[in-house]
Order: sequence, then C-alpha cells, then structure tokens
Amino acid sequence: MIPQNQNRRAPSADEIIALLNGVCQPLAAARTPLHEAAGRVLREPVCAPEDQPPFDRSAMDGFAIRLDDANLEFKIVDEIRAGDWKPRELQAGEAVQISTGGALPGDGLQVVMKENVRVAGKILTVVERDSNRCIRFRGEDARAGQVLVESGTTLTPGALALLASIGHAKPMVTRLPRVLHLATGNEIVPPEQTPLTGQIRDSNSVLVRAFLRHWQITPQQKRVPEDEAAAKSEISNLKSEVDLLLVSGGASVGEHDFTRRLLEHFGFEILVCKTALRPGRPLIVARRGNQIAFGLPGNPLAHFVCLNLFVRVTLGKFSGWAAENIFQPGTLAAKLESGRNARETFWPARSEMKSGEMKLTPLRWSSSGDLTALALANSLIRVKAESSGLAAGAVVEFVPTI
Amino acid sequence: MIPQNQNRRAPSADEIIALLNGVCQPLAAARTPLHEAAGRVLREPVCAPEDQPPFDRSAMDGFAIRLDDANLEFKIVDEIRAGDWKPRELQAGEAVQISTGGALPGDGLQVVMKENVRVAGKILTVVERDSNRCIRFRGEDARAGQVLVESGTTLTPGALALLASIGHAKPMVTRLPRVLHLATGNEIVPPEQTPLTGQIRDSNSVLVRAFLRHWQITPQQKRVPEDEAAAKSEISNLKSEVDLLLVSGGASVGEHDFTRRLLEHFGFEILVCKTALRPGRPLIVARRGNQIAFGLPGNPLAHFVCLNLFVRVTLGKFSGWAAENIFQPGTLAAKLESGRNARETFWPARSEMKSGEMKLTPLRWSSSGDLTALALANSLIRVKAESSGLAAGAVVEFVPTI
Repeated sequence: MIPQNQNRRAPSADEIIALLNGVCQPLAAARTPLHEAAGRVLREPVCAPEDQPPFDRSAMDGFAIRLDDANLEFKIVDEIRAGDWKPRELQAGEAVQISTGGALPGDGLQVVMKENVRVAGKILTVVERDSNRCIRFRGEDARAGQVLVESGTTLTPGALALLASIGHAKPMVTRLPRVLHLATGNEIVPPEQTPLTGQIRDSNSVLVRAFLRHWQITPQQKRVPEDEAAAKSEISNLKSEVDLLLVSGGASVGEHDFTRRLLEHFGFEILVCKTALRPGRPLIVARRGNQIAFGLPGNPLAHFVCLNLFVRVTLGKFSGWAAENIFQPGTLAAKLESGRNARETFWPARSEMKSGEMKLTPLRWSSSGDLTALALANSLIRVKAESSGLAAGAVVEFVPTI
Repeated sequence: MIPQNQNRRAPSADEIIALLNGVCQPLAAARTPLHEAAGRVLREPVCAPEDQPPFDRSAMDGFAIRLDDANLEFKIVDEIRAGDWKPRELQAGEAVQISTGGALPGDGLQVVMKENVRVAGKILTVVERDSNRCIRFRGEDARAGQVLVESGTTLTPGALALLASIGHAKPMVTRLPRVLHLATGNEIVPPEQTPLTGQIRDSNSVLVRAFLRHWQITPQQKRVPEDEAAAKSEISNLKSEVDLLLVSGGASVGEHDFTRRLLEHFGFEILVCKTALRPGRPLIVARRGNQIAFGLPGNPLAHFVCLNLFVRVTLGKFSGWAAENIFQPGTLAAKLESGRNARETFWPARSEMKSGEMKLTPLRWSSSGDLTALALANSLIRVKAESSGLAAGAVVEFVPTI
C-alpha cells in the first residue's frame, strides 16, 4: 500500500497510520450482554421501543389532584406507590397520595409536593399551589421509534444505562480482537528471574499485556527463543484464530532477526519493514486478509512508541471507530533538548491540563532501550525530523499514551 | 463534618467533596503481581536494584573493535549474540561480531554498525567510522539505588514495564475496594423483563456496574424491594467486608424511603442527607469507621451525577490518590438554555478537544429521570446556582464523566 516509488524511503508515522486506516477493517459484531458491552462500539442504531417515559409519572412525593380543582381541602382516597398501577377518575375534592415515580392514575392532574400541604388523617390541606404540575409526562424524554443511540457510539456506563432502561439488553457490539503475542530474544528471562550477565528481563510482555488490557483484550502470550522452528509451531497452532499477531524483537535486519521470514512463511504480505521514526526504526507491519501482524522493535521505549501509535490505530479500526487523528496540540512546559536528528522523534513526556491548556514536560531518555521515562510518561511529543530542540512555550503535537 | 450551624442548609457539591476528601482514607496496600497491578496506585518508592542497564550493551548490530584501534581491516575472532556473556580482551586488529543488545566483551570498545562495514569470510573492512560508539553504557539510564518510581504513582503499562525490567514483580499497591450495591424500589424490574404499567426497568444497576468497572471493581449487586427487613438481611451478611455500600433509590424523605433508617440501624453516622444539587438533591452520605455509604437518588440522571462527583472522589481517595480537583475549565460550544434555578446544576454535555481547546456542547434533558442525554454525555457542566442560561463561548467548569 506504500506506493512503489517510495519503496526505498522508510515511511513516516503519518504514512503508516494512513496505511493502517486503509487496510484494517472492523471486526464482526455480536449480540452481547450489557455488562460485557462497556467500552465497546455499538454497531446498530437503537430506537425507543415506546414513549419514554412510557406513562405519566410523579416527579415528587406528594398528592395528585385534578388540575381544574380549585378546592383547598381534599379527601385522600387512595395511595399510589412507585410500581403501582391504579387508574381511576379523580373527582373534585379528591386527592391520591403518590410517591416519586408513581404512575399518575389518569389525565388532567397535578401533583402537589408534600412540602406544600398539611395532612390530618384523611384530610389534605393545600398550603401552597403553583403552576408546576410535578409530572414527568409520557414521551417527554423521547418518542417511540426515535433513535436514542446511534450506530458507532462507544458504550459508556451512561449509554448502557439508557439501553437497560429500554430493555435493549443484548446490543450488537464489535467483538473483541484475538491477539497472540510472542516475545522473542535469547537474552530475555521472565521478570521474576535474576538474569545472568548478558541477559535482561522481559519487560515487553508486561507492557503488551497491560496495554491490551485497556482494550479489554487478554492476549495469548509466549516467550520464544530466536528460533524460527519454535516460533512457527507457536503460530501454527493459532494462526486461523488470531486477528492481531504481535512479535516483540527480531524486527530489524540482523541475520538472527527472523520475524520477517516467519511472517512471510505464514503468507503475510509485508507492508512496512523499516520506518523513519526514532525510536522505532525496526518495525514490520504485515497483513493476511483482515489479519494484521506487527514485528515490534525489542527495545522497550521503541516498543512503547509503536504500540501507542500503530497498534492503537489498528485496535481502533478493529473496534469500529472511524479513522481518528490521534495527535493533539499542546504547549511545552519546558524546553526539549534534542540533537538534530534526521528521523521524526516521539519523545516521552508528562502532559497535564493547567488552566485549560495542555502542558507537556519532556522527560529524559538516553536511548530506545531506556524505559525509566515510562514511570511518568503519559504522552509522546512529536518532534519533526531535522528539528534540533524546542523552546519552552512551543506549540507541539502529542499523542496521549495508554 | 458539615459544621453544626450549617445543619439546616443543604451542602453544595464543593462542601460534600471536601467532606469526602476529609473522611475517606486510602485502603491497605498489598503485594500484587504485575499483571493485576495495572491502573493501581504504588504505595512504596521503587529503587533501581543495580545500574540500568546492568552491563555495557551494543545499541546496534555491528562489530566491536578497540576504540584506540586505527586499523581499517580486522579479523573477526568471535560472535556475541544478545544473551551471551563472553568477556575477552580484544587486541588491535581484532573484531567481534555483536548483535543489538549483546554484552560488550570488555571496556574501551566501540561498535561499528554493520551498515558501515564490508565482510569477506573472517575479514572485516570498516568503510565508515565516526565518533558514535553505539554502546548503551552500564548505568546510563539509572544508577543502583536511584528511585525509579515514586510512591503514589498510578501504574501505567509503561511503569509496569519498568518494574518488570528491574525484577520488581510484586509491587505494593492499594487493594481494590469491596463494594455492595443494592438497587431498591418496588417499581423496578430487570432490564430483560417487560415492565407492567407503573413499573420501570432497573438501569441504575447497569450504570453502577459499568462505572465501577472503570475502577476494576466488580460489585456485589442485589435488587431488593422497599422492605427494610430484606435490605437489612442483605447487608447483615456482608457488612464487615464492605468498604463502600451503595443504595440506589429510597434516599429522599418520603415515608417509604428507608435508606437513612437502614444505615442508622447498622451504625452508620449520617454526614449528608440532602444536597443543594440539581439533579441529585436526595443524597445520603454516611460512614462507619473507614466504611462509606451512599444513598443515591433513584432517578437515573441524578444517579449519574452523584456517581461522577461523589463516589468518584471516594474511590480516588480509597485508591491512594491525593485530593484532586475534579473540575476542569472549558468553553461552551453552544448556548446553555436553563431557567434560573436556586440549586447548582450539573448539566450533561459532550466535550471535545478542538484545536487545543476543550469545547462543551450542552445536551437536552427534561428531568432527573431523563437519561437520553447519556447516549452522548461524557461531561457534566457546572452551572452556578441562580444563573439563568449561559451564552456560547462562556468559560465554564466541567467534570469529565466515566
């Protein structure tokens, strides 16, 4: 999808994002219980099946009387609690005690708040009466057939409550992606293990798992040695079921970097095999039908950048979102000291809203393997290629990170 | 905690938030595996147990040679892959092939990128050599003993990866709150059920569950009739285990509203029993030791407001956050048409960042029972008491909602 005549130039972040927005398709939708649908994308419009509210309801605890009844004293002839349905024609001089939410017994009525009456036995005296009827009228929120939630809406707790209120208990939402993550590298050991000299702990598996958790995805994860046969057998078992394959490490062009060969072996078309990003140069993007694979750079900061730029866009498209601009404007709270670099740089930073402005504080990082900045980072500042440092107060683009 | 002489005046949102910030205490911390610690608050400072990185590592695929070796041709005497540990003293004219991440075999070396050499058998010719040593030096990210993650940090995926990289696999984080939610009301039926006239579907249980999910909490939930005995037995079974008790409905002063009596029965001290909010006037806040209880108004929009203002502050304090200002400034994208009201109003709205500014579009709502606005709402605009409508472009305070 990257045009042929650009084959020799490594693509930019914008080009890779545009590519992913072009090739990734929303996953199928399925009817899902409300408590599993939180945060998912609705894939059907949902209409009110009947007027909302479906009957006239009292907005207050009080007494229902006829609107045209000018009496000041009334006989209390019944009580209606929320949940009751007691239709009756009220006569002049009659009142019915009614609870908040209770169904009015008929039309042409008014509820007088109990704060505005005196009660003695069955006798009600209205002390104050105004024009407020204290009724939530049938259909005042929405009419039967009206669209209440549009297709494409991300289901917040509030939207789910609305669906519950109309009995739409199994909305059509995008299914969750199935993800397989392989962490490769002969040097990595589990975080619980003490590495020998030359070895390091596998932090990328923790990063990937926590990142995907934000999307409600629990990936299948394996640590595999840099061994094509071992990796092939892991994938063979799972290939038909996976929407997204993530391989950490082995993405660069070293002779031991086998991710590309592995993906090609399984019939993936390589779309990107190197980028113009810093950190994040060694990145493979591949697809097979609607399956997407990433060969992610093993260095943890580069890994973090690629997840937050490219895997995020992929998951957004999978979930049924429209292509979104993931970049936002912000202002540097301190200068960003960077040597001139030919590559566009994504710089870890801490963003905070201050007096309505998004302020970004660049964090120190020494290399693509340095993840100390990730203790505080919640953003990546985009530093244009060939720029050399930015002054405090400069307006920049940034991506809020997950 | 609301001063005695204010007993007769219903407290404002700010007063209730200040009260909660005063009475709620962080829950205990416990050692927790990394994959369960995402989004939780670290309750200990975490230091680097050793220099980071712990040994000199190659930043590139290339060849290690002596820094002081001016030769152009070298004999390749060994290969070091990531994970290997092969200390040796290199002689002038000797080179060792090394992979990215590989441990340098000794000091005083430089790595020449493989893009800058030619290889013929065991003979290496350096084509281009610059001052870049292409080494990630021991300790360049952090020194042993240096604090890497401060106590009080919310653990993002990046922070978890950092902990994994230093083998801190069971950080001390705040335990999750235990929550019991009772939905009361004789008129409510489950969302799957078709209500009779006078009945409505229970949307608050769905709202509460999805809201708490944001905090990784799965509440115990029960629907109970407005029956003190039934509710008492539900609570009796669980009272000692619960950090937060939420009761939906029954919070106003109607004679059938039993939440207050219920809480007093169980020894809760009533801190608030009515507010100056719209929607959300009938709200009970109570405590017993470090346990907090809310009697939430049954009307769903009022319910939404109280969750997003007060339950949110409580959960933030429980989790170990410092008292935070939940309000942010924003600008109205359209006028907000509201009759003058004596109560401070929290108005459902849609917020969007546009060109670095937070723009708020007020949504239509007809009453505290109208949850149609919640299809789109992601914010609540604070409209001051006695104000009557606001023009487009007005600067307002808002709360982003969950």
